[in-house]
Amino acid sequence: MYLVPVPTLDNLRVVLVAARNPLNLGAAARAMSNFGVLRLRVVSPYDVAFREARSAVGAAALLASAEEYSRVAEAVADCGLVVGTTAIRHRELQHPLRRLDEGATLIRQQLATSPVALVFGSEKFGLSNDELAHCHWLMHIPTRDEHISMNLAQAVAVTLYELVRDTKVVEPPERQIPATAGELERITTVLLEALNISGYVNPVVAITTEEKARRLIRRMNLSSRDAEVYLGMLRQILWKLRSGDENSG
Amino acid sequence: MYLVPVPTLDNLRVVLVAARNPLNLGAAARAMSNFGVLRLRVVSPYDVAFREARSAVGAAALLASAEEYSRVAEAVADCGLVVGTTAIRHRELQHPLRRLDEGATLIRQQLATSPVALVFGSEKFGLSNDELAHCHWLMHIPTRDEHISMNLAQAVAVTLYELVRDTKVVEPPERQIPATAGELERITTVLLEALNISGYVNPVVAITTEEKARRLIRRMNLSSRDAEVYLGMLRQILWKLRSGDENSG
Repeated sequence: MYLVPVPTLDNLRVVLVAARNPLNLGAAARAMSNFGVLRLRVVSPYDVAFREARSAVGAAALLASAEEYSRVAEAVADCGLVVGTTAIRHRELQHPLRRLDEGATLIRQQLATSPVALVFGSEKFGLSNDELAHCHWLMHIPTRDEHISMNLAQAVAVTLYELVRDTKVVEPPERQIPATAGELERITTVLLEALNISGYVNPVVAITTEEKARRLIRRMNLSSRDAEVYLGMLRQILWKLRSGDENSG
Repeated sequence: MYLVPVPTLDNLRVVLVAARNPLNLGAAARAMSNFGVLRLRVVSPYDVAFREARSAVGAAALLASAEEYSRVAEAVADCGLVVGTTAIRHRELQHPLRRLDEGATLIRQQLATSPVALVFGSEKFGLSNDELAHCHWLMHIPTRDEHISMNLAQAVAVTLYELVRDTKVVEPPERQIPATAGELERITTVLLEALNISGYVNPVVAITTEEKARRLIRRMNLSSRDAEVYLGMLRQILWKLRSGDENSG
């Protein structure tokens, strides 16, 4: 029944950020269970009682095993691909935006080699710019222009349906193991400190240097091996910058 | 955006039979609105106040114009094709049962020439045998065997998504202009000088630091825009490293 073999589906994490309504959390969990996606991560839910969400018919076990995080960075740290979902079509996009069916193909390929996070924002506000900065790219469901914003749990259901539905067998291309979100975040942190010591001033006022650097690093599509090398380089540079600062200070 | 031209989508009627929960009615209406399916028919809803269903963000007009019937026969009377939805895989089937994607193809064809009813049963019991008897054939969403029963509004959302999604026309992904080799080489040069001042020692002896850095930068697949930003960052870091070196020298 599944295009994605069940073992690789086990690599998929659904990350719900700041969900306000326990009913939505429950309904999202139910859809996950319907489509065989069992790993739910919750970042800062509004209601601490989310595990008891009533509408979660058949999804109690899934809710009980949900992992709770306080920040997006932690919730996606082990993932080689982080995909944000958005209703918006034309943000001043710092990210590539893919339609669901197109994005699903890429996600299926990635699932063969590493964990993938599918990140959904709050019902009211979606994902913030800060949260989006943790994503490699964004994905939208092709709703009509007059009414683009879907209910959270329905968006989860439609997205997972598209991911697991049986279209045709896609062979995963040969790929390097991608860097995890945690590795990328470490690079971001070191780069930011180096920029800070260097007095780097962001010439673009619209977004912060932190967001800018975080997105830039994500867009580099580093392999895990390259990430290690690059982190080593930046750490050495940072070490030198710090010692220079001490000397001049 | 739509595979089904909008005029023929106007031929589609969603028929909800004996829905118990106004929240589900509202959520189903919202999903209809999201996917441009605007004709809702309701048969014997449990709650006469269904039109005020609170979760129907953006779907108030659709709920207000919903047509109410007391029997399925009346609700589907004008339709050339009546498709029932079911979670069950093997009823003693008096009907052909088609998987959603297969059924959707047939429905799209029919929409070109006549109204089509898509019938959903109550949350608790689905469609009764009597109600099923009004259907030409049945359709199921491919959920996993351990948890086949979907939330009503999610089932509506997934079904309509499959019906309207554009399988053939794929929008070209938004692509950035790639950085030129010259831009990449400038980045490489600055990075190498920064590494040199920092005393970076290549832990791998097989290739030189220069080659290693050059290849790493190429593998980043930077866009021209990102290359400019990144070069600005590295130049600032290099400037600081140089000034630190002067102070300490």
